[in-house]
Amino acid sequence: MPPTVLGRITGPQELDNLSPEELPALAGEIRRFLIDRVCATGGHLGPNLGVVELTIALHRVFDSPTDRIVFDTGHQAYVHKILTGRQADFGTLRKAGGLSGYPLREESVHDLVENSHASTALSYASGLARARGLLGEEHRRVVAVIGDGALTGGMAWEAMNNLGRAEHPVVVVVNDNGRSYEPTVGGVAEHLAALRGGDHQGPNMFEALGFGYLGPVDGHDTAAVEDACRHATRLDRPVVLHCVTEKGRGYAPAENDEVDRMHAVGVIDPETGRSRGGPSLSWTGVFGAELERVAEARPDIVALTAAMRQPVGLRRFAERYPDRVVDVGMAEQHAVTSAAGLAMGGMHPVVCLYATFLNRAIDQVMMDVALHRLPVTFVLDRAGVTGPDGPSHHGVWDLSLLGAVPGMRVAAPRDSVRLAELLGEALSISDGPTALRFPKGGADPETPALTRMGSLDILHRTWSRPLDVLLVSAGVLAAPAVRAAELLAEEGVGATVVDPRWVLPVDSELVHMASRHRLVLSVEDGVAAGGVGTALAQACSAAGVGTPVHPLGLPREFLDHGDRSAILAECGLSAQSIAETALALRGAAATVPTPVSS
Amino acid sequence: MPPTVLGRITGPQELDNLSPEELPALAGEIRRFLIDRVCATGGHLGPNLGVVELTIALHRVFDSPTDRIVFDTGHQAYVHKILTGRQADFGTLRKAGGLSGYPLREESVHDLVENSHASTALSYASGLARARGLLGEEHRRVVAVIGDGALTGGMAWEAMNNLGRAEHPVVVVVNDNGRSYEPTVGGVAEHLAALRGGDHQGPNMFEALGFGYLGPVDGHDTAAVEDACRHATRLDRPVVLHCVTEKGRGYAPAENDEVDRMHAVGVIDPETGRSRGGPSLSWTGVFGAELERVAEARPDIVALTAAMRQPVGLRRFAERYPDRVVDVGMAEQHAVTSAAGLAMGGMHPVVCLYATFLNRAIDQVMMDVALHRLPVTFVLDRAGVTGPDGPSHHGVWDLSLLGAVPGMRVAAPRDSVRLAELLGEALSISDGPTALRFPKGGADPETPALTRMGSLDILHRTWSRPLDVLLVSAGVLAAPAVRAAELLAEEGVGATVVDPRWVLPVDSELVHMASRHRLVLSVEDGVAAGGVGTALAQACSAAGVGTPVHPLGLPREFLDHGDRSAILAECGLSAQSIAETALALRGAAATVPTPVSS
Repeated sequence: MPPTVLGRITGPQELDNLSPEELPALAGEIRRFLIDRVCATGGHLGPNLGVVELTIALHRVFDSPTDRIVFDTGHQAYVHKILTGRQADFGTLRKAGGLSGYPLREESVHDLVENSHASTALSYASGLARARGLLGEEHRRVVAVIGDGALTGGMAWEAMNNLGRAEHPVVVVVNDNGRSYEPTVGGVAEHLAALRGGDHQGPNMFEALGFGYLGPVDGHDTAAVEDACRHATRLDRPVVLHCVTEKGRGYAPAENDEVDRMHAVGVIDPETGRSRGGPSLSWTGVFGAELERVAEARPDIVALTAAMRQPVGLRRFAERYPDRVVDVGMAEQHAVTSAAGLAMGGMHPVVCLYATFLNRAIDQVMMDVALHRLPVTFVLDRAGVTGPDGPSHHGVWDLSLLGAVPGMRVAAPRDSVRLAELLGEALSISDGPTALRFPKGGADPETPALTRMGSLDILHRTWSRPLDVLLVSAGVLAAPAVRAAELLAEEGVGATVVDPRWVLPVDSELVHMASRHRLVLSVEDGVAAGGVGTALAQACSAAGVGTPVHPLGLPREFLDHGDRSAILAECGLSAQSIAETALALRGAAATVPTPVSS
Repeated sequence: MPPTVLGRITGPQELDNLSPEELPALAGEIRRFLIDRVCATGGHLGPNLGVVELTIALHRVFDSPTDRIVFDTGHQAYVHKILTGRQADFGTLRKAGGLSGYPLREESVHDLVENSHASTALSYASGLARARGLLGEEHRRVVAVIGDGALTGGMAWEAMNNLGRAEHPVVVVVNDNGRSYEPTVGGVAEHLAALRGGDHQGPNMFEALGFGYLGPVDGHDTAAVEDACRHATRLDRPVVLHCVTEKGRGYAPAENDEVDRMHAVGVIDPETGRSRGGPSLSWTGVFGAELERVAEARPDIVALTAAMRQPVGLRRFAERYPDRVVDVGMAEQHAVTSAAGLAMGGMHPVVCLYATFLNRAIDQVMMDVALHRLPVTFVLDRAGVTGPDGPSHHGVWDLSLLGAVPGMRVAAPRDSVRLAELLGEALSISDGPTALRFPKGGADPETPALTRMGSLDILHRTWSRPLDVLLVSAGVLAAPAVRAAELLAEEGVGATVVDPRWVLPVDSELVHMASRHRLVLSVEDGVAAGGVGTALAQACSAAGVGTPVHPLGLPREFLDHGDRSAILAECGLSAQSIAETALALRGAAATVPTPVSS
């Protein structure tokens, strides 16, 4: 094989030795590398194909890690990883113990920010630039790379308001591909489009805020980007460098993908761009179909998404009810409070978010929706352990956060039948907010109930006198809980498994059921602190129920990327672990009291 | 007395009957009314003096409640309350059961939004306008009134991005007084200043985002504001109406107040504007003085505030270390993430917020600070029940939210001595984030410890064999906990009172101490769900400690405005209530088990 350019790049310093003629070859080799590797492992493809030349240029002009390069929404950092010595690791991308899909400080000194939530880069850059000034480290340059989509997030505005008039020179590279998943929405998108079109007579928002403005620059012309970066640095002031790029560039299946330019893919055939696996019915799909069905008879239903219409299952809903779906941009705060406004105006809004992004708007959920007791339904997709996207994408905090919101009712369907049922119940509640949470991936097969008591589903019962172990399962942990009860039965231990369906606040019937057992274990795929189990323990305590309640859930830790079921098992949430924990606690409980009331 | 104009205004419809000549008289009478009433009760003075003419004009042009008028940060709604039939209630302003200091729907059909957190109005308006369109209610007009300070908040940007290009006509009245408390910071402030100065040649940010722009208009000229409102309505599109007002207008002590134009006052002498009470040493003051002292030997300390330099105690710090204090505007998200950047750059940032506003940035605390294990210290003033500002100003969620943040260490000083001590400890921690929380008002007198065990302070001990009740107090509930223990002693019940000082995560020594008692009660002035007590119960459960743990705290409800100690007592957190609860539980506990391990 002929020696490649890419093969010589063991670190960013090697880039300086390349001739201008070698740069297009390098870009081509990187694209080929990305397509080969990401099609084999799955991962973020479109965004990285769009920043090949841009990233080469940044690493040629700036001297990382002395200079600080912060990538917003780190899924665009694959090229950065390739150029900073991690080519060999791409076979393990997003696998447990393998290369992270986001920057990770333990992988490289060139990585700074591990969080994958959007719109943060300008704030980090602001802090880094101020620290540089205070420490007299004028030799360090600070660069933030942010997409046009991320500019729709409020954090980016807060940072721009501070940065534009700051004394610190910062280079803000706006990577404008006109999209987040789908096309970027709102005034800033249209303004960028006008600037892309060469409208320099009209108002320039960045200049209004105090920035210098350079551009538009062709982000696929390495030399042009390099020249603009050097120019920006010489200005010695806050500068916006407007680079125009194309998401999915150089890979026909991505370029032709109208939905999201192959934003993120599973394992696919690199020739066709098609999935190698068969289609399966996802939680997201079940939700989307059911909402579409219900909305026919409910003209008051309006769906909101924060730049993720397709990922949260609203694509067909949007085609059928275009007036009743709102994409607000990467703007969860506005999504929630404009939903409050819609509800005040007589509608029933359904705010569709990934569970991890609910964190962004918990104040709005509390103060704007719950304080006003408005009928807004939150649909939290990708709740629980998500897997390959790592610590900031696991949706494991929603129960803890919503547990503190007065009047919030949270449902966790255990299977697709319950999802449809609970969505219907949520949409029928008109005196306050509701939330539904369900995980990533294929919808669980039905776990039937033996019987329903009030709102509670009894899933399993092995009789014993007195009643022995009560397993309270939240959502999709129903199946391992039932299996755990079966394992307990094999050990001669009686157990009841109950799915409360509505997991917060705690149902009084559940407290009564707890009082009739010797021992309660709750299982949930969220952080145990402040979750369903601790709420049940607190409710039992308040009711004078002496049965010990043991909340099993995720630790108060950030969980690495890896396989979902493996992570759950490591955290003690497999059927086997649940049964073992119950047996161990039951041994302890034997020396403990019988319940106060029964 | 001559008949007054104000005396005839029983509702907004009466305003239509006034002649143009009567309008200045009405404005003067409203100012006199505000000064008289607010000086007698305390409340928000400066902001309301600034919006007298503006509010009159809005209620003359728009037809509330058919038209929807949303006030951002409702403390500017006193004039609105005066004009909508609530003059007679101002003697009870901010008192329990009396007139709220913010809009309140149960007071009036003219009130829409009860939340007092800033930057929300445009999002509500966006939702209201969309609902109007979907329901075919074209006769309704939607108006949002937002201060220039609130435009620095990211939510406002998210909404502007959506509103400017929307199909719905909305009138956005920018009430530009150049300040939040202190002068508004950043690019938007300078841009508004340029527009105020009549610079119509330069870029106009609002036009760049798609809005029509009208202004600047003298916000103290009722007729001019009315004309502009009518013009804005006729444009039938999203319009920014830029009104220039003066905070504190018409009251010399406010106009001459350089700090914050008498933003909010206690009971004061209306002639002099001086407080009638003597100065007392506040928690805020103790913190500010101590931070200033420590910073002398610690050049790495940088303080950040979200537009509240004076209220969070940083005024003297800012005078002494001007380079080391950053006012980011009403932008908690950016405050937190730029602090993360500062810490990455080698500094130890101290982010000073009211506890209630931490809700706005919990994702940034988690993902930007905690995920990176950065040494950022959060100082949460006004934690717990604050009193007169009502449900959205109580700082009662911080423990629940921070309880879910991996690696976050939270301290709650019980008195001013401990505040200084714990601040020093927090600033010495370099491997992760820390938080300190303390309440509003005068610092509690010292509650001395009998002894320190590890990090725990033992405050009281009445011996019994076996050990009986353990009271675990968080922060300022130490004093009532000690008093409760004394009451228990009078009943012959032995009790230990322990202040963990660092309340989250739970200290293993505390779990051991719990194991040696028959019964544990925790007391905290935060929502019990997910707080210190539930964490302790969970830690005991995980450690196999069978002692029942009863978390006493605030209910999962929104608490009305009222007197702080009265609210705490109503929630069962007075010394008397704590003792009674312990006695009742102890009765129950007698039938329950001895601890598993002891």
